[in-house]
Amino acid sequence: MERKDMALLTDFYELTMMYGFWKKGRENRRVCFEYFFRELPPHNGFALFAGLDQVLAFINNFSFTDEDLRYLRQVGLPDEFLAYLRSFRLEIDLWAVPEGTVVFPYEPLVRVEGPLASAQLLEAFLLNALNYPTLVATKAARICYAAEGDPVLEFGLRRAQGPDGGVTGSRAAYIGGCVGTSNALAGQIYGIPVKGTHAHSWVMSFDSELEAFRAYIEIFPENPVLLVDTYDPLTSGIPNAVKVFKEFREKGLPLRGAIRLDSGDLAKLSKEAWRLFREAGFEDPLIVASNELEEDLIADLKRQQAKVNSWGVGTHLITARDHPALGGVYKIVAVQNGQAWEPKIKISGNISKITDPGRKQVVRYYLPSGAPLADVLYLENEAIQTGEVRAYDRENLFKEERFAAGSGKPLLQKLVEKGKVLPPPESLEAVRERALANLAALPGEYRRLRYPQTYSVLLSPGAANVKRELLTEAGFFGRR
Amino acid sequence: MERKDMALLTDFYELTMMYGFWKKGRENRRVCFEYFFRELPPHNGFALFAGLDQVLAFINNFSFTDEDLRYLRQVGLPDEFLAYLRSFRLEIDLWAVPEGTVVFPYEPLVRVEGPLASAQLLEAFLLNALNYPTLVATKAARICYAAEGDPVLEFGLRRAQGPDGGVTGSRAAYIGGCVGTSNALAGQIYGIPVKGTHAHSWVMSFDSELEAFRAYIEIFPENPVLLVDTYDPLTSGIPNAVKVFKEFREKGLPLRGAIRLDSGDLAKLSKEAWRLFREAGFEDPLIVASNELEEDLIADLKRQQAKVNSWGVGTHLITARDHPALGGVYKIVAVQNGQAWEPKIKISGNISKITDPGRKQVVRYYLPSGAPLADVLYLENEAIQTGEVRAYDRENLFKEERFAAGSGKPLLQKLVEKGKVLPPPESLEAVRERALANLAALPGEYRRLRYPQTYSVLLSPGAANVKRELLTEAGFFGRR
Repeated sequence: MERKDMALLTDFYELTMMYGFWKKGRENRRVCFEYFFRELPPHNGFALFAGLDQVLAFINNFSFTDEDLRYLRQVGLPDEFLAYLRSFRLEIDLWAVPEGTVVFPYEPLVRVEGPLASAQLLEAFLLNALNYPTLVATKAARICYAAEGDPVLEFGLRRAQGPDGGVTGSRAAYIGGCVGTSNALAGQIYGIPVKGTHAHSWVMSFDSELEAFRAYIEIFPENPVLLVDTYDPLTSGIPNAVKVFKEFREKGLPLRGAIRLDSGDLAKLSKEAWRLFREAGFEDPLIVASNELEEDLIADLKRQQAKVNSWGVGTHLITARDHPALGGVYKIVAVQNGQAWEPKIKISGNISKITDPGRKQVVRYYLPSGAPLADVLYLENEAIQTGEVRAYDRENLFKEERFAAGSGKPLLQKLVEKGKVLPPPESLEAVRERALANLAALPGEYRRLRYPQTYSVLLSPGAANVKRELLTEAGFFGRR
Repeated sequence: MERKDMALLTDFYELTMMYGFWKKGRENRRVCFEYFFRELPPHNGFALFAGLDQVLAFINNFSFTDEDLRYLRQVGLPDEFLAYLRSFRLEIDLWAVPEGTVVFPYEPLVRVEGPLASAQLLEAFLLNALNYPTLVATKAARICYAAEGDPVLEFGLRRAQGPDGGVTGSRAAYIGGCVGTSNALAGQIYGIPVKGTHAHSWVMSFDSELEAFRAYIEIFPENPVLLVDTYDPLTSGIPNAVKVFKEFREKGLPLRGAIRLDSGDLAKLSKEAWRLFREAGFEDPLIVASNELEEDLIADLKRQQAKVNSWGVGTHLITARDHPALGGVYKIVAVQNGQAWEPKIKISGNISKITDPGRKQVVRYYLPSGAPLADVLYLENEAIQTGEVRAYDRENLFKEERFAAGSGKPLLQKLVEKGKVLPPPESLEAVRERALANLAALPGEYRRLRYPQTYSVLLSPGAANVKRELLTEAGFFGRR
């Protein structure tokens, strides 16, 4: 999975714009971009931020190779500019919310400041690197929530959108709460526990199902799980599995009875398997279900008291099947003019799409219980309110909200300075622990599967003021 | 994008099953697997096969590295087996339908024969490598169909599911008919034409939109396209663009007026832009639209006679938004017993999921016009019918179909022998030409956007016979 070179993993227009900036002598003008998303996946009350590891690695390793420069000459960029690119580095400062943090629409999750050329060039890679993992970590959290504490395994590789879909998707699913993956490469790269049973082909390559089951347990006497639906599970697979587990018990190998169901009526089959195992004296059989599972189906099986106690989830998790793209964007919010930062706004006919101008910090306020209460977007350098907080709706700027809260916690942390990544990378386990703690602290009203509460993301007095001023200048409230 | 090592990009159970086969002395038993999919994406009458390039490269380069073996020891595989893996190669024979061929559900698109260990191990990578590109090539063909010959550009990188989603997705989109991509790395690797305009940030980094437009054309006087919706397109962006194109014409640079619309009412805005350009004497302005486009929206804009003549499609194409996973599967169809091949069947309560046993060839029959008429799955070595063809429904095996046809054309070609890839890789242009020719030959009834005809995929007399026999043995028709 190591790649020699990712500098060209960008939209071509980033390179042509960069050339334009350079040509106009503007390449070093300092600008500030922010990354945020506008919409949660359907029925979601929160998202789980992930993918930052790739962004940091990209910044750290960035340079154009000779091969890249040859290609860029071939597509028309002039030699003087290529000479500039030869020693080009991403000389940016970057602040980000830590991976594994619960986040919400419209809050800046990453803030990038630096020379226009660097900050612009980062756009496409950053979007590619953050949108997908955030989506999958969020989906995993939702699926694990539906599974009510049962282990959820990520089995998505074969349906993932390419190798990265598999590998970075596995990492994101683990952050979101999965306990393991089927993907051996993700196991190797990230140390995620790898799991698996066997395929139908195992059974079909033997002369009979019984023979295949016996061979499997003989070879894998540690926690074997038998796949019981190659032929008919009710008349063949389940009874054969119970029979073989009994045989091994009689031979002195007291295993936990364990099967996987990969098709059919999972509620009925799991109950029948449970009954047969219990009758045979296996008190606590492991019944793994797979086959097009997602959170609603798992919740429905739970309602039917299906006797499944482990869930293998593939397609729906790894592709975020019902909403396969997070529409995260990277927007310019300020440009430096002399020493001063000048806030910038992007107007839209759609009021929610009007950007929030200015370089910002996200401050999270909490209830005394530790549950998050509201997030407020402050201007950088604005004093953070404590105790009684006043803030404003980001669409209806005259609507004031007041609430009592302790001291807010700034979420954006500085991770990169002049292109150098400051702290050592976090371990995946640390990120996952943060995610699980964040999820545990989030009140159920934001987690439920349907009609979750909308979490408040508000503008600080300073941020609301700047937005009002720029909208007034633009004639948004009517020309006077 | 070069990767050092992909051998572990597999489901862990492939490796444990392989160990099991080896342990039982069955690793060299010859088996035959086939890759096929059961369902087309919604409203689709066909799919366009793609992704084979990655499978062939994987087979060619396959070996476990020392690092891989260390990892496999760490997760519990024993040393004797690792010694076997050290020199392990994928010693398979492989037949496949050429990339860019129009294909249909249930027909084997790839057939793999070889030692059980090799053929099994290939499963997860092959599925990962084929499912996604086939999905995107198919989606691209559908979008290009809706665009009625207008150029369609793939702009998906920022919403793709990881870097591979971007790069292999760009390749697949190009096969399916797109004329270019925004993704510079895909351009470099595959030679796909790269395209792009500029972002809102270009405009926002200047003091005014007019200044930004002037600077852009000055720097990019060859086919510049101006993005007109940073502020209000009707009162600002479009009039400013027309004004600047006029200025340059007056300076002696007679450019084609060209803009991109990335938000708002694309029908209305494009007509207004068209009108203003024409009034200003630009006879044939280029009006590119982007923003959450997909085939139905493009068709609707066409119905409204929107004056868009170039389409930039991102999210919906690169993620196949409405159906982001092709459920392709890889199933064992035969096992060698001594010298004879023994066909294998996978039974299911769902009749369409019962597999078609035996090693097969896909034969396509054509109308005299050159349009495909029906595909028949023959057993390998079965005589191919010519003239009057008899064939059988794959679910209702007693339902005979007869049709008159010329000589059928076998679609599966041998590409790998004992792990060596036989022909040199095809050029991407050759694959794309095949795709466009295949699409052009496909009657409209299979291409339309809603309720396409179902193309006939039938079993040959021999294949139907084997399936009947195995189902009889399994008691499917009732025990007698």
